[in-house]
Amino acid sequence: MRRAEKGKVYLVGSGPGNPELLTVRAVRLLETADVVFHDDIVSDEVLKLVHRSALLTNVGKRCGRPKITQVGINALMIESARAGQSVVRLKSEDPLVFGRAGEEIAALRGAGISFEVVPGVTAAVAAGAMLGLPLTDRKSASKLILCTGHYAADKADCTPIWSGPLPVDATLVVYMLGRGLRRIARELMAAGVKTDMPCCAVSHVATARQNYAACAG
Amino acid sequence: MRRAEKGKVYLVGSGPGNPELLTVRAVRLLETADVVFHDDIVSDEVLKLVHRSALLTNVGKRCGRPKITQVGINALMIESARAGQSVVRLKSEDPLVFGRAGEEIAALRGAGISFEVVPGVTAAVAAGAMLGLPLTDRKSASKLILCTGHYAADKADCTPIWSGPLPVDATLVVYMLGRGLRRIARELMAAGVKTDMPCCAVSHVATARQNYAACAG
Repeated sequence: MRRAEKGKVYLVGSGPGNPELLTVRAVRLLETADVVFHDDIVSDEVLKLVHRSALLTNVGKRCGRPKITQVGINALMIESARAGQSVVRLKSEDPLVFGRAGEEIAALRGAGISFEVVPGVTAAVAAGAMLGLPLTDRKSASKLILCTGHYAADKADCTPIWSGPLPVDATLVVYMLGRGLRRIARELMAAGVKTDMPCCAVSHVATARQNYAACAG
Repeated sequence: MRRAEKGKVYLVGSGPGNPELLTVRAVRLLETADVVFHDDIVSDEVLKLVHRSALLTNVGKRCGRPKITQVGINALMIESARAGQSVVRLKSEDPLVFGRAGEEIAALRGAGISFEVVPGVTAAVAAGAMLGLPLTDRKSASKLILCTGHYAADKADCTPIWSGPLPVDATLVVYMLGRGLRRIARELMAAGVKTDMPCCAVSHVATARQNYAACAG
């Protein structure tokens, strides 16, 4: 299988945290990269797969406070690749879903650095798998909507999760419950969701077995 | 790593087709299961991982014509598990997203058969990875909507892909272009999508490199 190439950056999804849910490609890249820059939320079990001679750096943020700015992360990736190293930028779940990969891709393209995106298992499907809960259904849910409960730093706090009526035949998954369950429930009811809509809250998807609770209304 | 257990059914996502995008867990289950029932669309490269002593059966459908009915597939899984075999039900991409896993889960629960869902890489993120195209963006796309362009057999052909206005800050991914690109484009424009909305069509996500085309309007 292909090793990580020198001078190239790999934006790799680490999935929900359980190393068995990494892709084969992600494992191979972690085992062979010279440098790994990882999010704070990537699990220890996944990080153990990184080769012990590799340089491993946590560039993540916790509670919204970054250790290194996004511009700083971009610069680190570009410098390492230019120095001839193989670089993995390891992100939780999938890099392209709520992962700010767009900003990193733009920086890499701007600097003329070769890159590859390795997709991962996103939290919605990992949570569904844990619960044995389908996310779509031929008869009742022909759409799957992923959105975020976290406010972007440059957006007003009053922006609701959903404006206008929510489709009745959709499953809605809210990532990052920044504004809190109570407020999210209020905003969804304002978008037409009935108080008897089945709902569950899941945390620690990678490790929890049945860590969820009903929260209808 | 844990082998497939006897008397148990595993609903496994095979990802977009490239075996490097299988999860580690999926590979281990394919290597150790006694019986594998797979969709038609699962790639040959993935099926090569199934142990050569295992019973491998294609239960998929092509162009909507099933080889075996859903009820028949459910019965096969249940009978095999009751006979003490370890069973993998191998689905393309992720089992819970447009995969009819709900019907299989209900049948397994009804029959009292132990099961596990193994999530996979869904086509939307695989396509985004191939194109280096983020699916969300902090500033312009805070939602990701997955929907299907295929009509359910029991739904009227006139049901549009989206009713009412589409959110302006969403990325929309249409799986299974059953009704055709032209009709989907018309329906989306009726839902308020402007003719200059950037758009791409992707086929053969697993193997194609840049097999896409602009199709604005």
